[in-house]
Amino acid sequence: MAKVHNYSAGPCILDESVLKEAQAAVGNFDNLDLSLLEISHRSKNFVAVMDEATALVKEILNVPEGYSVIFLQGGASLGFLITVMNLMRENGKAAYTDTGAWANKAIKEAKLFGDVDVLGTSKDANYNFIPKDYTVPSDIDYFHCTSNNTIYGTQMKSFPECSVPLVCDMSSDIFSKSVDISQFDMIYAGAQKNLGPAGATLYIVKDAVFGRNGRSIPAYLDLHTHASKESMFNTPPVFSIYVSMLTLRWLKANGGIPWIEARNNEKAALLYNEIDRNTLFEGTANLEDRSDMNACFVLKDEAHKDAFDKLWNAAKINGIKGHRSVGGYRASMYNALPVESVQLLVDCMKELEKTA
Amino acid sequence: MAKVHNYSAGPCILDESVLKEAQAAVGNFDNLDLSLLEISHRSKNFVAVMDEATALVKEILNVPEGYSVIFLQGGASLGFLITVMNLMRENGKAAYTDTGAWANKAIKEAKLFGDVDVLGTSKDANYNFIPKDYTVPSDIDYFHCTSNNTIYGTQMKSFPECSVPLVCDMSSDIFSKSVDISQFDMIYAGAQKNLGPAGATLYIVKDAVFGRNGRSIPAYLDLHTHASKESMFNTPPVFSIYVSMLTLRWLKANGGIPWIEARNNEKAALLYNEIDRNTLFEGTANLEDRSDMNACFVLKDEAHKDAFDKLWNAAKINGIKGHRSVGGYRASMYNALPVESVQLLVDCMKELEKTA
Repeated sequence: MAKVHNYSAGPCILDESVLKEAQAAVGNFDNLDLSLLEISHRSKNFVAVMDEATALVKEILNVPEGYSVIFLQGGASLGFLITVMNLMRENGKAAYTDTGAWANKAIKEAKLFGDVDVLGTSKDANYNFIPKDYTVPSDIDYFHCTSNNTIYGTQMKSFPECSVPLVCDMSSDIFSKSVDISQFDMIYAGAQKNLGPAGATLYIVKDAVFGRNGRSIPAYLDLHTHASKESMFNTPPVFSIYVSMLTLRWLKANGGIPWIEARNNEKAALLYNEIDRNTLFEGTANLEDRSDMNACFVLKDEAHKDAFDKLWNAAKINGIKGHRSVGGYRASMYNALPVESVQLLVDCMKELEKTA
Repeated sequence: MAKVHNYSAGPCILDESVLKEAQAAVGNFDNLDLSLLEISHRSKNFVAVMDEATALVKEILNVPEGYSVIFLQGGASLGFLITVMNLMRENGKAAYTDTGAWANKAIKEAKLFGDVDVLGTSKDANYNFIPKDYTVPSDIDYFHCTSNNTIYGTQMKSFPECSVPLVCDMSSDIFSKSVDISQFDMIYAGAQKNLGPAGATLYIVKDAVFGRNGRSIPAYLDLHTHASKESMFNTPPVFSIYVSMLTLRWLKANGGIPWIEARNNEKAALLYNEIDRNTLFEGTANLEDRSDMNACFVLKDEAHKDAFDKLWNAAKINGIKGHRSVGGYRASMYNALPVESVQLLVDCMKELEKTA
């Protein structure tokens, strides 16, 4: 049966080899005659999974000494609060950029606890660019940004110079390209784009953060608690971490970040070139801020909508309907999406131009 | 190959039919030619899963009108904080019973935010009984208890009269027996005992709780946020919720709470009768407080340890080593453990007595 070409914005496509191994483990894990779902997280078999997942994050992202890698739950939504709890002093101050829906939620959470400077916003342009004309103040507890904005298809290509701790929500582009981890005091990312299934959240945090703001931090929100227990303070999301580990193994075996970055560049170039070349389409995001993960585009003339939708549906392309706040189409090209799937979408766009 | 008899304290045994369906869905879910792991949580297929899981909780537990059922993440450890945030006023006051390790963590979290009365504790007796000689005050924000203590093998058989909101951590015995939900303002439970795999946490909360304490609650901790979005405020732990839904279907198809309560009673009677009858063993928990979920017992003479361990290992019994704070053995008999597995353990105990 022809494979579905899965452009889902997240939870999203995972590599077939990963899915096959995950499926096998739900039946019988590590030849224990037990399912992965019914073993203790304290068993040596699962502790080995957690250790390998943690080590692979460090190796693949080249995480420097003095950082902890932690797997938690709650997604970026809980990450917004964990950021504040671990980095903001009581009645402290932080700066954020406002680059979309997720950045907004992060800002809202911080405002519950202290002063928030919004340094730049592209709200008035429906978030179609990444603000860059700001200077990060030096008298704040931290500066927070969102590296990739799934809904609007924009992505930060570099991070600003700053003398204060830099925090980044990398939920939708971590592991997609090389990043200098040493620039950051804290990175967090929901697993469900480039890492694994929904249910796990990755934190990479500089150990110097621990205890720095002098707060009493509730146990589950305290990154130091989790780092000191190697992500086993309480029962971790066993299955999500296992599948994340499998995805990291797959990424490493294929060549790690250099391999995936080249592949992602190829996919993005293929699609954006067609969006720009094809007379029927146009992109919605500023050229220089276009996301390599989520390409947002619209038909110049809505009259072609039915014909185009028929074409990509017939090609078994799934999940390219744009978010309601942008409209049109959004092609999410996360790590596991093959180049062939992008070529197929491009072919549909060409076919439409030919027949329209 | 002979099945392993899985007494794991959690994550724990799930029914084989559930595991088979879960495995199939990791391959191809709902005939979408997509894995359950790679579909959007906003897809109609997953929304149907969430709706069914929520409806099954209401039906199986006979949840009255005016309550919301919510699936979150973070386990009971985050539940301790969510309790305080949703039920304690600023600088408020609550009462807790101290019945073990988990109750202790709940108390510790509440103390960060207000006054905590510890109404009863069995700490000096290594938590081998459930304190009952207390009166719940009427001038507090809520009273919190832990219904079942996995480590010490004790369980509350009834809940105290109280005029203030009653909150219960039911992580390790929810769905195991009938409970009058209308007694409680809030119940929470990690999925990984009787509900499903690790990674989901169930909340049952009286709607009257929403907004009652006048606090500004961080978004992810606010039960009203989640209730109003039907557990889709952010990306839910898709796989854990799906497998929970399958488990609830299995429970309902077999006869629901009346069926499982009878089966759990049978299993507990079988094992406790042998613990009491067998001259080589003794139970560690007070008779009247013994848990139907976790039976803790020790050898009267440690000299028999090697012989007993050989017997149950040969029978493919897994996971009955006691927690380090109690020692000896702990047989966790969660819902999915068959009566036959308990009979096998009893047979090993009898065999030891015969040959010792």
